Amino acid sequence: MSDYRPIGPVVGIVGAGQLARMSQPPAIALGVELRVLANAPDESAARVIVDTRIGDYRDLDVLREFAQGCDVITFDHEHVPTEHIEALIAEGHAVHPGAAALVHAQDKAVMRERLSAIGVPCPAWARVSSAADVTAFAEQNGWPVVLKAVRGGYDGRGVWVCRDAAEVEEAMATGVPLMAEAFVPFERELAVVVARSPHGQGVSYPVVETVQQDGICVEVLAPAPGLDPEQAAQAQRIGLTIAHELGVTGLLAVELFQTSSGLVVNELAMRPHNSGHWTIEGARTSQFEQHLRAVLDLPLGSPTMTSQVVVMANLLGGDDPDLFKRYEHVLAHDPGIKLHFYGKEVRPGRKIGHVTAVGSNLDEVRARARHAAVHLMTGEYT
Amino acid sequence: MSDYRPIGPVVGIVGAGQLARMSQPPAIALGVELRVLANAPDESAARVIVDTRIGDYRDLDVLREFAQGCDVITFDHEHVPTEHIEALIAEGHAVHPGAAALVHAQDKAVMRERLSAIGVPCPAWARVSSAADVTAFAEQNGWPVVLKAVRGGYDGRGVWVCRDAAEVEEAMATGVPLMAEAFVPFERELAVVVARSPHGQGVSYPVVETVQQDGICVEVLAPAPGLDPEQAAQAQRIGLTIAHELGVTGLLAVELFQTSSGLVVNELAMRPHNSGHWTIEGARTSQFEQHLRAVLDLPLGSPTMTSQVVVMANLLGGDDPDLFKRYEHVLAHDPGIKLHFYGKEVRPGRKIGHVTAVGSNLDEVRARARHAAVHLMTGEYT
Repeated sequence: MSDYRPIGPVVGIVGAGQLARMSQPPAIALGVELRVLANAPDESAARVIVDTRIGDYRDLDVLREFAQGCDVITFDHEHVPTEHIEALIAEGHAVHPGAAALVHAQDKAVMRERLSAIGVPCPAWARVSSAADVTAFAEQNGWPVVLKAVRGGYDGRGVWVCRDAAEVEEAMATGVPLMAEAFVPFERELAVVVARSPHGQGVSYPVVETVQQDGICVEVLAPAPGLDPEQAAQAQRIGLTIAHELGVTGLLAVELFQTSSGLVVNELAMRPHNSGHWTIEGARTSQFEQHLRAVLDLPLGSPTMTSQVVVMANLLGGDDPDLFKRYEHVLAHDPGIKLHFYGKEVRPGRKIGHVTAVGSNLDEVRARARHAAVHLMTGEYT
Repeated sequence: MSDYRPIGPVVGIVGAGQLARMSQPPAIALGVELRVLANAPDESAARVIVDTRIGDYRDLDVLREFAQGCDVITFDHEHVPTEHIEALIAEGHAVHPGAAALVHAQDKAVMRERLSAIGVPCPAWARVSSAADVTAFAEQNGWPVVLKAVRGGYDGRGVWVCRDAAEVEEAMATGVPLMAEAFVPFERELAVVVARSPHGQGVSYPVVETVQQDGICVEVLAPAPGLDPEQAAQAQRIGLTIAHELGVTGLLAVELFQTSSGLVVNELAMRPHNSGHWTIEGARTSQFEQHLRAVLDLPLGSPTMTSQVVVMANLLGGDDPDLFKRYEHVLAHDPGIKLHFYGKEVRPGRKIGHVTAVGSNLDEVRARARHAAVHLMTGEYT
């Protein structure tokens, strides 16, 4: 890199997973130069981004060196210690989202406190530090109680649905700080991705339905089928309100429960999100381009859909590591299917890619996405 | 790169210009690993492709080393000596397009001979080695005569439109091997991009109109406005026929003149082409993804348009090198405009990027593309 001089603005992404990887195509188009902080040179994004630095994001000195020469710092994940982000900002670096906003995506108790304060619908919740606290919470809100790790959980990890005091003891035994939430009997899960720029422009993508299996998102339907337009508008308003009130800069994904009595916020993420992968082909501006534009404080792009229906299906690793030999069948079967492979070693259950189908008929589009996903994951002909 | 192990197939691209650069987004999606042979580490594609090798493509030993570990070799330009490509193929490398096909995009006389033999409409033409040859050609076909460098011309370079014997002398004085073509009084210029895979599948994109200024393409309108459907089908047939007859593997772009008496082939290129840049947003499968799929012998993708009208406008460098400060205005003015900057130093007249607009009304879409291109190039508010 010694004799290399960037031409465009440099965006540093802490973390080198698939979200950083999928940020590279819009960066290439815009002439934005990406730098990533990876744990190892063969990580997903490190394979496709020239300016890859190797280091530990928990080390402030590593972050300081990484930030030198970057116009903006942003994140592939939410694990960077809040105090390190505060230090970088204090030292004059532009970091988006900033520490004050990001903490709401890092600490679920802080998030619940703030959302409750600004009137966003949340499940009943409480900080708990003992099994007795949980039992007291259950007496008020009923069983089951959902215990969540206050920090660090994802994809169903760090979440325990406890039906009784015995199951509470099991969860408490992990020793991680927990909070309690009332179990929400939801009809389905929805998500909305919004973007907000430092100068305050906001944009919302259409509300989608996310289909989960064992706590992992397997399918996203855009727009959420049959969703009442008023409820869709409410979900978008919730997203934009949270982004504004919390001072989010960049993307904000809001996971929602749709219940018989209305919408309830489940989780927040402040980065491109699995529920927005459909936008790569399905929206005029992909969530990855949108995030870059937002953190660079450029005007945001159109979130308009490119077709009536878009379905994204995640690829989870199976037993056979050779995904490529299965390209032949799915690409020949469906010339319109779009494949995304994250360049990660295939391991059972790991998110290794996704497929996207666009069209006008939901059943048809969904069947196409499923066909491709099933064959790529299992080799089965369906 | 020492401890790095590719997961996907490796495609080596000789050359590291904007075509190789724009191949990286679909490679990232498909999990295909690109390697480029660049002249310098700051070239357009070298900025965004990790596995960049520096070397001279005219040196067979450099090409041999470059090819080690690649599953397929392809090209960003047509300047690799034919005999080097033959050597690589003889040594067992998969090279697409192969030497026997590519020579038709390298040597205009070979191209004219072959196209005439298979009945594809061409202007009258002749090999010429003296001014007397040209004068004899003019006596038969009239003035002006178009003299073309048999090898190596592009973007209007290597082409001389001679109105008389004096202008012929000037062109001959350059000393490069020339051929003569009758001047074609065309109504407009069209282009068609087709793909052909080694196993023989063919796909054609819609026919487009290319608008030229001073021999450089400034605008592409997709589909070609008002083109008679039969003539459009004929152009696609010409493209697919040439690809089949010449054994092209990968993309083939055919530039055509539309005249009062029908279509005439002007030039061929065997790689992604400026007339196909609109496909990045405008077609379900971009030409760059299509080329990768074709050279890897994967089933080809749908060339269907994503909207009724797509306009691409090239960005030529102006006096002011700072393109980025002009992003603000064009992105705020039009949330749907798509910018592509090639990461090249801005120099007057150099192709440094392009913009794309999609929509349903040609005049509107064209005005949007022009607005963005004019402001990015000149800073003018129009």
